[in-house]
Amino acid sequence: MPEPLDAIDLTARLIRCPSVTPQDGGALGLLEAELTAAGFACTRVDRNETVNLFARWGAKGANRSFGFNGHTDVVPPGDAADWRFDPFSGALADGKLWGRGACDMKSGVAAFVAAAVDFVRETPPDGAVVLAITGDEEGDATDGTVALLDWMQAEGERMTHCLVGEPTCPSVMGEMIKNGRRGSMTAKIEARGVQGHAAYPHRAKNPLPALVRLLDRLASHELDQGNALFDPSTLALTTIDTGNPATNVIPALARATLNIRFNDLHSGASLSQWLHDQAAQVQAETGIELGLTIKISGESFVTEPGDFTDMVANAVEAECGIRPVLSTSGGTSDARFVKNHCPVVEFGLVGQSMHKVDEHVETAHIGQLKAVYRRILDQYFAG
Amino acid sequence: MPEPLDAIDLTARLIRCPSVTPQDGGALGLLEAELTAAGFACTRVDRNETVNLFARWGAKGANRSFGFNGHTDVVPPGDAADWRFDPFSGALADGKLWGRGACDMKSGVAAFVAAAVDFVRETPPDGAVVLAITGDEEGDATDGTVALLDWMQAEGERMTHCLVGEPTCPSVMGEMIKNGRRGSMTAKIEARGVQGHAAYPHRAKNPLPALVRLLDRLASHELDQGNALFDPSTLALTTIDTGNPATNVIPALARATLNIRFNDLHSGASLSQWLHDQAAQVQAETGIELGLTIKISGESFVTEPGDFTDMVANAVEAECGIRPVLSTSGGTSDARFVKNHCPVVEFGLVGQSMHKVDEHVETAHIGQLKAVYRRILDQYFAG
Ligand SMILES: [Zn+2]
Ligand SMILES: [Zn+2]
Repeated sequence: MPEPLDAIDLTARLIRCPSVTPQDGGALGLLEAELTAAGFACTRVDRNETVNLFARWGAKGANRSFGFNGHTDVVPPGDAADWRFDPFSGALADGKLWGRGACDMKSGVAAFVAAAVDFVRETPPDGAVVLAITGDEEGDATDGTVALLDWMQAEGERMTHCLVGEPTCPSVMGEMIKNGRRGSMTAKIEARGVQGHAAYPHRAKNPLPALVRLLDRLASHELDQGNALFDPSTLALTTIDTGNPATNVIPALARATLNIRFNDLHSGASLSQWLHDQAAQVQAETGIELGLTIKISGESFVTEPGDFTDMVANAVEAECGIRPVLSTSGGTSDARFVKNHCPVVEFGLVGQSMHKVDEHVETAHIGQLKAVYRRILDQYFAG
Repeated sequence: MPEPLDAIDLTARLIRCPSVTPQDGGALGLLEAELTAAGFACTRVDRNETVNLFARWGAKGANRSFGFNGHTDVVPPGDAADWRFDPFSGALADGKLWGRGACDMKSGVAAFVAAAVDFVRETPPDGAVVLAITGDEEGDATDGTVALLDWMQAEGERMTHCLVGEPTCPSVMGEMIKNGRRGSMTAKIEARGVQGHAAYPHRAKNPLPALVRLLDRLASHELDQGNALFDPSTLALTTIDTGNPATNVIPALARATLNIRFNDLHSGASLSQWLHDQAAQVQAETGIELGLTIKISGESFVTEPGDFTDMVANAVEAECGIRPVLSTSGGTSDARFVKNHCPVVEFGLVGQSMHKVDEHVETAHIGQLKAVYRRILDQYFAG
């Protein structure tokens, strides 16, 4: 029986792969080697410029197929000179591992890989353990987890439940599990009028009063008050731009962008309809053409509290000594794609330093995370 | 007795002076020579980079001192290759003089200078004829007519009534006299909040909802319905800018600019107070800091219809065959400064081609304008 796989060392080795999205930097090859050595069947599911890794231990389509989803790509480090340690050195200091991806989420991937390798070696389960690891989560995510899931469906590969290993804890290890996420959409609004001189406004058609009227109505509207599973939906105006330097000229064109984070009381389609209705109303009132371009990044999803969330929460409590809350707060993650295939829950590290200079992770937390994942695997196949 | 001074030829000679604001290009020297030859006492009242010319025929401080105000500077011609004739050639073609300043307002200056020179030579009046000609009307106008008026006050020079020679006719020669102008002010609004992630709006303070609320209220407000002398006041939003390219980031700062053209139902001070009150109200509602920077370019003014406007209107009707209307419409002019010293009325050419490529003037109109001005001088001193 080989030694247990060291998750801290594996995290450090992953950090040393410069996998700035969409580059791989050798990260998936490193995982593939460890998983293959433990008996996983590995398949590269690359699409366009994106690298992805599918790995399965056990039989295809098994009735118990526990899945894990994560990513090895990272956001750019910015100026390396601003960092205490080189962002791709994986330095160990003060009980922490330092580097880009230390927190989001090479540690999460390493912890699950180590837990799964130990698990199948020590207590080979009656079922399958499946990993879907992408190199395109931080980019536009079109060729990443979506591509893996498409491929799995076409090949008859399955996950009966899935864990996503993103950082989920705001500040204390173990305090939060994500059992859902709000949806996200972005709308760009273009208001078109007719240019003219400010002294003769009746000869022009100013797009700005129509635009501010529409934006005021949208921003003032309460979308909902939230519900038992979700915080209220929010709408944020993010930019309004005209670029007219002449104080005596009425502009012909102005643009604005807004972002909506929405719970399960709405959908991308229902909110698009609302935006179109509001714009049409203001256009009818003002005669100014108001065009909308809407991009839905992801619908909301929720995994109802139950056996699966309890199993994860129990494992967290046993290893971290704290009962995690279930939350649907925060941004989006690839769980929004996984939820179309099987129940999905997210649990991972403290996310405070993610995407920042001097990103780091407590090595003790990596150990705890591996133990949580191992406990979940034990429990899942013991049931 | 010398020949009458040819206003068309003088206009062409002025056009050949490349007096793009604030440059003089020899324009004032040319006028000074003609006026001096006719017995006017000329004084250069230059301030900073700006050239100005004061000229008086007759006694300082006379009880009848008829004044004329105009400018010889012009806006830039743009690309000379776009013009039918070189913009500083003063070409004569199709019964028109072509070039920058042909319409705004070297022709107006030439017409009055020619009328005044003929007048004092042929029928020396009991009183004074005064010209205040500036080289800084098209620029920021701080060292132009204002400097001349300051200097005149300090020197005991006076104008008992004043004519401004800007183009005043929308399309037909003689159709409009300006007996007033609306005031103009520009307000820059800065909305300041706290940056944050669009997924966590409660941790940020978005300045945009406050800004659009304020702007919607300002733009929706009816300032007034106008009165017998003035069109309604107007407020034009001219630009809103944020410059935030990230659709998932709430910005910290946004700016907007608006321009108000106001009649005598308001003043710069009353409107500033209104803007400050409205901003304070929205600031109280939203907690977003809303800063205002206000620049008053000119207060409104009106010369009540009466003997002076009748005299000008009668002269126009006699020479142009059309009864002019009195109007206070359009942009600002230096009459906004003159009105603090004496009653002022504006009459000049058709303004259609001003500030455009292929600016031109009908030579017949220059002759009519000189005749109108001469008739006004005759009438003023006959009274
Ligand atoms: Zn991540
Ligand atoms: Zn002018």
